[in-house]
Amino acid sequence: MTKYLVFGHKNPDTDTIASAIAMSYFLEKQGEEAEPVALGEVNDETAFALNYFNVSAPRVVTTVANEVSNVALVDHNESVQSVEDLSEVTVDFVVDHHRISGFETAQPLYYRAEPIGCTATILFKMFVEHSYDIPKAIAGLMLSAIISDTLLFKSPTTTNQDENAAIELSKIADVNLEVYGMDLLKSGTDLSSKSETELLNSDAKNFDMDGKKVRIGQVNVVDFEDILARKSALLDQMATEFMAAGDLELSVLIITDILESNSIGLVVGNDFAAVEKAFKVPVVEQQLELPGVVSRKKQVVPQLTESYTV
Amino acid sequence: MTKYLVFGHKNPDTDTIASAIAMSYFLEKQGEEAEPVALGEVNDETAFALNYFNVSAPRVVTTVANEVSNVALVDHNESVQSVEDLSEVTVDFVVDHHRISGFETAQPLYYRAEPIGCTATILFKMFVEHSYDIPKAIAGLMLSAIISDTLLFKSPTTTNQDENAAIELSKIADVNLEVYGMDLLKSGTDLSSKSETELLNSDAKNFDMDGKKVRIGQVNVVDFEDILARKSALLDQMATEFMAAGDLELSVLIITDILESNSIGLVVGNDFAAVEKAFKVPVVEQQLELPGVVSRKKQVVPQLTESYTV
Repeated sequence: MTKYLVFGHKNPDTDTIASAIAMSYFLEKQGEEAEPVALGEVNDETAFALNYFNVSAPRVVTTVANEVSNVALVDHNESVQSVEDLSEVTVDFVVDHHRISGFETAQPLYYRAEPIGCTATILFKMFVEHSYDIPKAIAGLMLSAIISDTLLFKSPTTTNQDENAAIELSKIADVNLEVYGMDLLKSGTDLSSKSETELLNSDAKNFDMDGKKVRIGQVNVVDFEDILARKSALLDQMATEFMAAGDLELSVLIITDILESNSIGLVVGNDFAAVEKAFKVPVVEQQLELPGVVSRKKQVVPQLTESYTV
Repeated sequence: MTKYLVFGHKNPDTDTIASAIAMSYFLEKQGEEAEPVALGEVNDETAFALNYFNVSAPRVVTTVANEVSNVALVDHNESVQSVEDLSEVTVDFVVDHHRISGFETAQPLYYRAEPIGCTATILFKMFVEHSYDIPKAIAGLMLSAIISDTLLFKSPTTTNQDENAAIELSKIADVNLEVYGMDLLKSGTDLSSKSETELLNSDAKNFDMDGKKVRIGQVNVVDFEDILARKSALLDQMATEFMAAGDLELSVLIITDILESNSIGLVVGNDFAAVEKAFKVPVVEQQLELPGVVSRKKQVVPQLTESYTV
């Protein structure tokens, strides 16, 4: 029997980890052998959720072709965000909620993407369509993913489907949605113990934009004060990483106030014309205001892609 | 309100036309305005189905950006098989059953692909999931698509899901599946009135294989005799079109005996090493035997892609 490794993107977030676990369970319900794995250590927020529902973090892998010939991707499809040796295995399943870019297969596959707030919401629908029960712990992780990706329904990526799924999952997981939700979100905002490198890379993704490589990290905070006190150290480290990467066009750090639903961006690059054009605000001392912006996927990536493409 | 144009691939076949019509109906059930269109005139088999169920052929378009800003694709995703100005519109929906290649979006979208015999089968599942009734004529066209794509369940692409969908759709359409199925398939096999150009292009698709452009056409017959009598005329026309295209690596015509489930391939190209490697048979006088081959998607494209890639 084919064994599947199931994984989300590099720098895993709660949706990537929860969806890998849920998709593995879904595949096993369909008679497949499947194991969730991760392309990096889990972040604080995900660790909080795993601990709360008493689930072990998935094993970390850096390659997959040495173990299996077939894989399932969740919460991503772009090869720059995936495992290094993706081209050496066959992708048979993708469940995702992002744009499609740099993804190619030689064979037909199962690909399910919807433009909604969270991969776990799509998985919830798949469980419902197949009348599969969801175990309490997996429901708790899927709920955590939805809370995380939608910032407790404040993100503009949120749909009714995400809210409805979260309500149903909170019943199965037996938690109070609002109370657990705020506890979960706050668990990821204590940045005081993090190095600049950790802050920049804990939730960073690379994007190909019209042939240019753009790196966009994001951190959640409950106020801007503490992190802006570290602005020059963050910019120094961004510049160091930018130079080290060699092929980057732009590096962005989105700092998001999850209580006020606003962001500030820090940028390093050769020029910021595309950034200013994308967001229609000036870049002052490598910083820009992004009022109302909380979603990288919906409020940053398309605008920057458009700006570089046109 | 956004109006969607909904269309399948160039050189439309029955699945592309039926799925465009069914997807438009599905979108309208969801409150969207949608119109099915086609990227070319319908073939004889599709005309038979449309006539049988008293449905007009979709309007033919060559561009879409002059009419709408948003589109839905069915039965394809590869830009080389789609409308010329695809890059100028936003793709919000894809329902397909092919590999994913050369497809990029800037925004998240609804993308549903499954590795099954027919796009219409996926649409049937979508209707069932939403508890939408399917009108008799649309059911008849969706049934025709499944019969066409699976060669009445003889193609290796056929799954239980295709058979089950066809059985349910035949009840709604009020036809005898076997009788209507053979009538439909035979309606596409009278090639005597077709020119060589028509035979080569009625069901031809371009594929990007590791940067090389490969064109693969397919015709269905009930025996090989009549068409092989025209072999030299077909090869002459293939050579003319090959030279005219300029950027083709290989041109293939798959001639499929739908009663015996065998094919013969005719090939034009600079060399046939990749073809011989892909199918493990010699190319003799630009012809190769393909016993048991009926599916371009499953038995031709992956093998050739692999052969060019490795």
